[in-house]
Amino acid sequence: MKRVITISREFGSGGREFARRLADRLEIAYYDREIITELAKRTNLAEGYINSLNEQRPAPLFPITVGHTFSPVTDVMWTQQNNVFIEQTNLLKELAEKSDCVIVGRCADHILRDFSPLRIRLYADMGSRIERCKAREEQNVKLSDREYRQKINEIDKGRAKYYQFYTGKRWDDGLNYDLLINTTGKDIKQLAEYFAQIMKD
Amino acid sequence: MKRVITISREFGSGGREFARRLADRLEIAYYDREIITELAKRTNLAEGYINSLNEQRPAPLFPITVGHTFSPVTDVMWTQQNNVFIEQTNLLKELAEKSDCVIVGRCADHILRDFSPLRIRLYADMGSRIERCKAREEQNVKLSDREYRQKINEIDKGRAKYYQFYTGKRWDDGLNYDLLINTTGKDIKQLAEYFAQIMKD
Repeated sequence: MKRVITISREFGSGGREFARRLADRLEIAYYDREIITELAKRTNLAEGYINSLNEQRPAPLFPITVGHTFSPVTDVMWTQQNNVFIEQTNLLKELAEKSDCVIVGRCADHILRDFSPLRIRLYADMGSRIERCKAREEQNVKLSDREYRQKINEIDKGRAKYYQFYTGKRWDDGLNYDLLINTTGKDIKQLAEYFAQIMKD
Repeated sequence: MKRVITISREFGSGGREFARRLADRLEIAYYDREIITELAKRTNLAEGYINSLNEQRPAPLFPITVGHTFSPVTDVMWTQQNNVFIEQTNLLKELAEKSDCVIVGRCADHILRDFSPLRIRLYADMGSRIERCKAREEQNVKLSDREYRQKINEIDKGRAKYYQFYTGKRWDDGLNYDLLINTTGKDIKQLAEYFAQIMKD
């Protein structure tokens, strides 16, 4: 059985960097955006669109459909979103069978449960998350702290709904993970190095 | 500055064993019941009584005092409980100054915040906690799972209140800790060995 490490993360907690560095140190595969690219090929959908699906719960009843239970528009969207999820499920399993790997988000902790993954979740306080967002933002983007807080909360709300919808579990429930790491004020590179040590053998 | 590791734990999550084994592997001091013994000496109170104080919030208004704001009975208890907490605070600081150590419970993560402790919290699902309670119970004790669940919930409720009262923070808020470890179905000895590796530096 291959070794699978899944990373769930609050937006701005440094989860993606942690995952990439961990995979680097362990010399195993790291999957994140590659999954989107492959899914786009398999489903003939745009990468940007697929990416957006990972941050929200499928919406079978759009506001536009009030009074129309079977709107053809939302029916197509609903089917499409669920098809993407099914394709993603197959793809994650293929990847986990192929080699040891680190996978970010995508309900991988739940989808790959038969692989007994090490399920890690990263979180941090709001101040620290805002700082991380600022640090990686393009230079021409200038948001206030309040706007960052709003953006962070919105994204996490979407992720929580997505997770809840497809797994039936709460995204922020510690029992769905093996290890929760508080990255508040921490150096992500150093954290990844620490944890790589215990995962090496 | 000495290295201080604090262990917060849900009842039945294996926190005490983890702490003891971690201290063993790191070859540093481990403080738990020793604290009670020393406090009993300093305060001239019974060890059993002091121990019980750690699992509940001070109760300035006992049911008996309804209508008596300044009951002499509860006033004494209130003062005593708070005196014990003050003595404990001093003692924890003395211990942390003396040598590297692992300390279980007692709001140590908060009291020793100036020592920048590594704040670990252990948790587990209810089934796993009941199993751990059964395994360490005296042979003549026979509780049903329902009774264990009740006992576990009561103890944790007391600990949460105690923590909230003296720190002003939520006991189960991940942001009060650096690392949360899910011990569900895990071997505590192996866990302690894993984590000792990254703390060895």
